[in-house]
Amino acid sequence: MPRQTQIGLMSPAELVSEYETQQANYAKLGTEKLTLDLTRGKPSPEQLDLSAALLSLPGADDFRDASGADLRNYGGLHGLPELRALFGELLGIPASNLLAGNNSSLELMHDVISFAMLYGTPDSPRRWAAEPVLKFLCPSPGYDRHFAITEGLGFEMIPIPVRHDGPDVHAIAELLAADPQIKGLWAVPNYANPTGVVFSEEVVRELVSLPAAAPDFRLFWDNAYAVHPLTDAAAPIADVLGMAAAAANPNRPIVFASTSKITFPGAGVSFLGGSTANLDWYLGHAGRKSIGPDKLNQLRHLRFFGDAAGVRAHMQKHRAILEPKFQLVLRILEDRLGASKVASWTEPKGGYFISLDVLEGTAKRVVALAKAAGIALTAAGSTFPLGNDPEDKNIRIAPTFPALPELEQAMDGLATCVLLAASEKLLGK
Amino acid sequence: MPRQTQIGLMSPAELVSEYETQQANYAKLGTEKLTLDLTRGKPSPEQLDLSAALLSLPGADDFRDASGADLRNYGGLHGLPELRALFGELLGIPASNLLAGNNSSLELMHDVISFAMLYGTPDSPRRWAAEPVLKFLCPSPGYDRHFAITEGLGFEMIPIPVRHDGPDVHAIAELLAADPQIKGLWAVPNYANPTGVVFSEEVVRELVSLPAAAPDFRLFWDNAYAVHPLTDAAAPIADVLGMAAAAANPNRPIVFASTSKITFPGAGVSFLGGSTANLDWYLGHAGRKSIGPDKLNQLRHLRFFGDAAGVRAHMQKHRAILEPKFQLVLRILEDRLGASKVASWTEPKGGYFISLDVLEGTAKRVVALAKAAGIALTAAGSTFPLGNDPEDKNIRIAPTFPALPELEQAMDGLATCVLLAASEKLLGK
Repeated sequence: MPRQTQIGLMSPAELVSEYETQQANYAKLGTEKLTLDLTRGKPSPEQLDLSAALLSLPGADDFRDASGADLRNYGGLHGLPELRALFGELLGIPASNLLAGNNSSLELMHDVISFAMLYGTPDSPRRWAAEPVLKFLCPSPGYDRHFAITEGLGFEMIPIPVRHDGPDVHAIAELLAADPQIKGLWAVPNYANPTGVVFSEEVVRELVSLPAAAPDFRLFWDNAYAVHPLTDAAAPIADVLGMAAAAANPNRPIVFASTSKITFPGAGVSFLGGSTANLDWYLGHAGRKSIGPDKLNQLRHLRFFGDAAGVRAHMQKHRAILEPKFQLVLRILEDRLGASKVASWTEPKGGYFISLDVLEGTAKRVVALAKAAGIALTAAGSTFPLGNDPEDKNIRIAPTFPALPELEQAMDGLATCVLLAASEKLLGK
Repeated sequence: MPRQTQIGLMSPAELVSEYETQQANYAKLGTEKLTLDLTRGKPSPEQLDLSAALLSLPGADDFRDASGADLRNYGGLHGLPELRALFGELLGIPASNLLAGNNSSLELMHDVISFAMLYGTPDSPRRWAAEPVLKFLCPSPGYDRHFAITEGLGFEMIPIPVRHDGPDVHAIAELLAADPQIKGLWAVPNYANPTGVVFSEEVVRELVSLPAAAPDFRLFWDNAYAVHPLTDAAAPIADVLGMAAAAANPNRPIVFASTSKITFPGAGVSFLGGSTANLDWYLGHAGRKSIGPDKLNQLRHLRFFGDAAGVRAHMQKHRAILEPKFQLVLRILEDRLGASKVASWTEPKGGYFISLDVLEGTAKRVVALAKAAGIALTAAGSTFPLGNDPEDKNIRIAPTFPALPELEQAMDGLATCVLLAASEKLLGK
């Protein structure tokens, strides 16, 4: 396939020729009867096989923690102490400030917001459900499942631009100081979904320090990709709890993490970190909800990893599977779209996604074209609150699940759709 | 130990003698330095050992359901179809009306109430959090963790007397027809906690049929002991969903169950049953909270049981351990308290508890005396909303956890406390 020339500089005749070329490519795509899926950030079966030993753990007669507690029975609302210590080391959080939960950190986020709605936080003048209006800051492009929680609860969601070093703290500063109805901000500090951005220490310091009109403003700090580098230089983990305490806002951040993309997405362990006041508050409500998380699954994970180094070694095996997929996607994007200048994309150093910006006003069309050709993509706009991408240009690419040959087919097809939609648009079709 | 005569008929001198006898017994108890615990309905280690095979299941290479879905990965909000069918058979609920969840049915109850608070039910004129007053019917004695949920959310809790065949439906009928703020009723239909009562079919029919002023009135139908008989004649499971549909109140009952007292309390599987409208509603909200329950733990349970008959056979092993404990408690109660007529108790045909009524006004004193002697009991009053037993007479006995020798010591000591407290009271001390 010859490299494109820059589409925006083409003569009308060249543009028509380009359009016809991509139409032909697209017609050919249709004959291939593809059924490819780039929608969700799911580990591939090969990645899941890395944790096969979990399927037989903890094993006969292994059901006690170091203190001798019987993990089969009720109790232990905080979770298994040894596993909290292990992940505390990885997340830079003392074990005493970290809880271990069931299989979903999204559930912990939903619980924290629900508890705040129903009871208020330790710093709330009233329960959030009693507020006349509720607002949430949503760095965008961001994670659709975050936005779905705040949408469901009726929050007014305010998009915040994302820069190379994190969300735009100047935009946040202005909003936060003025509006006491802003109760939270969604944050993925390391290898963000979908931009791959790593928050700089300066951005983290601003986020924990900025004056907020709401005394109960919370950072929902979803460190989903804390140990998921794609290069040798893993991004550091900011000590967000320590920095918040130093800034006299100890209760502002609540940290979430999980093993969903370390072991099994459906059967992993989640974590919640926070100040002592936040954890006491959370446990007070969680204690009416459950007599404790599945501690045997936590033991299973502890035995599997052994220690923090065991997790890091395990993540290198994931990287060995994922790096070629990311490289393939980036190579195809460069080969097919690099010269055309109708698209730009991120080159993430970790995490699960590549964020693709196509020609303004064509993302929906690209996704529809791809769908018709058997290539499923996350709905255009889904990386923005209410699914509303104001420029209709962002597409999230999830390269982890398909095998390399399918990924290559899907990306090549997607590139055709991007070029076809761009030439259509420029021709005013 | 000689049998008591009826304390209420004693002469003053006999009563003083009785008091002195029990004082001496109690002083002797103090020298034994006991640390015994009858507080919670926890399975014993011997019971947990019955499920030891779970610790190595599902085993290498076993991670697919019958349709071929990879249970390690995200997805499957309804839970494992085969396990839903298996427990549907036991609970008398079609698999299509039963979901399988994580390790806590209490969590499912809390979620259902939280969703109703935050969003309203399919039949609600407004979300419950927007109601000026919320009320809940609480058959008492009942389960303290149920009451803690409605207490936490600010419900006014109305105690309902419990009869031999279930809660007093006449009292319920009157309240329900008149008051649209009554949004729910806590129910444990089989071998209730702590009374052991099994709701009669007639009571179930009334509960699903009674006119309710609130269109969104819900029965929180916690069938925690559905397959937990202590005799050969297992109590039938009422088809509460079918009966509610026949009564044109299909959305009234929401059924909860779990394997907490079948396999491992901390690492079992929970179930939620309801009408299609209720399940759609629940899943709509649960789908924003989690990408699905731990399906590998569900597979683990499926492999362990095989089928419904496997669960029933497994429960017979529990019964073989539990029946001698219940018989021991009943024998000691009869031997030590039978003739005295200062106490009465239930003789449950299943479940986890014996409900002991002591002389009015002495339950708190009995629990305090026992505690000082090293015998931990659930706090007096905890079987009533807000911990308020108006007659101060009910004590919940949980005989399942201690081994037989400890149980014998604890019950004998408890009987001494009951008699001492009664003679104190009658002597006006």
